[in-house]
Amino acid sequence: MIHPIFTNKENFIGAKQRIIGYTHKTPIVTCESINRLAGCEIFFKLENLQKAGAFKSRGASNAVFTLLENGFKGDVATHSSGNHAQALSRVARFAGIEARVVMPENSVKSKIDAAREYGADITFCIPTLEARETTLAQVIEKTGAREIHPYDNVDIILGQSTCTMEILEEIEPDIIVAPVGGGGLLSGTALAAVHFGKSVRVFAAEPEGASDAWQSFQKKQFVPSERPNTIADGLLTSLGKLTFPVLIEHVSDVFLASETQIIEAMRTMWQRAKILAEPSSAVPLAVVLRNHAIFAGKKVAIVVSGGNIDIDNLPWK
Amino acid sequence: MIHPIFTNKENFIGAKQRIIGYTHKTPIVTCESINRLAGCEIFFKLENLQKAGAFKSRGASNAVFTLLENGFKGDVATHSSGNHAQALSRVARFAGIEARVVMPENSVKSKIDAAREYGADITFCIPTLEARETTLAQVIEKTGAREIHPYDNVDIILGQSTCTMEILEEIEPDIIVAPVGGGGLLSGTALAAVHFGKSVRVFAAEPEGASDAWQSFQKKQFVPSERPNTIADGLLTSLGKLTFPVLIEHVSDVFLASETQIIEAMRTMWQRAKILAEPSSAVPLAVVLRNHAIFAGKKVAIVVSGGNIDIDNLPWK
Repeated sequence: MIHPIFTNKENFIGAKQRIIGYTHKTPIVTCESINRLAGCEIFFKLENLQKAGAFKSRGASNAVFTLLENGFKGDVATHSSGNHAQALSRVARFAGIEARVVMPENSVKSKIDAAREYGADITFCIPTLEARETTLAQVIEKTGAREIHPYDNVDIILGQSTCTMEILEEIEPDIIVAPVGGGGLLSGTALAAVHFGKSVRVFAAEPEGASDAWQSFQKKQFVPSERPNTIADGLLTSLGKLTFPVLIEHVSDVFLASETQIIEAMRTMWQRAKILAEPSSAVPLAVVLRNHAIFAGKKVAIVVSGGNIDIDNLPWK
Repeated sequence: MIHPIFTNKENFIGAKQRIIGYTHKTPIVTCESINRLAGCEIFFKLENLQKAGAFKSRGASNAVFTLLENGFKGDVATHSSGNHAQALSRVARFAGIEARVVMPENSVKSKIDAAREYGADITFCIPTLEARETTLAQVIEKTGAREIHPYDNVDIILGQSTCTMEILEEIEPDIIVAPVGGGGLLSGTALAAVHFGKSVRVFAAEPEGASDAWQSFQKKQFVPSERPNTIADGLLTSLGKLTFPVLIEHVSDVFLASETQIIEAMRTMWQRAKILAEPSSAVPLAVVLRNHAIFAGKKVAIVVSGGNIDIDNLPWK
């Protein structure tokens, strides 16, 4: 069942006002040559140019400042493969509190460096969900910090919704495609479309190597992400208790892309559109290019979720 | 002496109206971590997200549609190492005319491919100014096309000025830094600052390996670009009859950057700000990072002139 907080439009408007000053209103750009390739009109919402390089700054800002408004005085903590860690660390610094971050030891180096630069207190763990959760529990026990889950948190989801609120203020797409990992961005996208869209459909884009959301959507029951294997390092996690019901109720479809298609879409975004997208952010374009008939002639908004990639280790080297 | 057409503000306003529909109003973005590094507040004007991947679309649109307004019915021709060729070919297609383009045979492959995709009729020549001019003269004799010089053309310069007009509508910088090759963008920047700025200074940024504008500025007399050697492949050319006087009269200073500094600045733009800039576009940031005292605490606008680079051949590989 959808969390009741998501049924009230005012909560979304509140989030949008709350994050002003801590996030960018990011630009939306088009690229004629990609439109020709795709056979539709694509609008790229550039969250790679968002503060800390990803949409995660939206959710983190809303979550931290909601806590502060409610009188909370402690630190915050989370486990994150990278972008959420950076975003939370950055916002915590603005709020004058500490961010205690648990990161898998195989996280992308540039993401670890960035979180460190934002002042995060990092604890590493082995790259399993269990190890993340156990380590985080230990950190919280030791520091008394409040957990800010990367996606299964109402304030995070309300924050992520502001991206699509901005899209819908500027254009009227037929379809919005967002990548899905844990489902925070996707849920925010779908819920914003419900409250602020006219007749827009929301599609999820997922790597074949981490197809748990696709499976969950087909079976209409939660399927966890087990041994995911994809270059899209932001999309490895399982759906959550808050995000699964939003997927089932408000997302029109889930589409998969292969690793080759993801890398090719990423190359296309870099070479043709000059959009420095990380692999996770290329999955929506990969899906559009793979399913010509579905998108033909449509106005399609794509959330370019982030640009945090180690430029010394590009996948086409 | 400054060309008289540049003394009338109306000509700039006319150019801005003329290019609507053929060019983007590009976004301006900031990056906290680069601001910390530079010790000033930098506003990146993203002409890498301009149509055809560079500011050149502005000048090309203004030049071609000015010709059409004046009843011209033939084709256009030019010599260009790349971005101007792409831009002119694209606009010519909109105008329903041919673009005859002379390109040095050592042009970046991605630029040749793109010009070809836009439908250019390309003739290659050896990479010297003399060969470019001779070959172009032959092409013009054969086809009757009208030459659109990449920078020494009043309509091109008026077109390039629209980039700074947009900057000044959105922010009030203390300084604008533009790269200088032939001086078309720089002239447009300086002239727009004269007509539309309050108390903004314009600085030119140039590679040490192609320092003819710097030398010309120091000596107050034209020095040609001889055997330039720099990774900034858009900045190899000499100043022109129209651009040299603008440099002397309206540009406050010229600063140089080394090859190492250019590559480092480009890396910084990619890694930290997720701005996919070509080497020529990184020269202004290189100059800012090299001259801390001059820029400290200032509001600095940087024109990110283009993003046309072969992503398989990055300079830090």
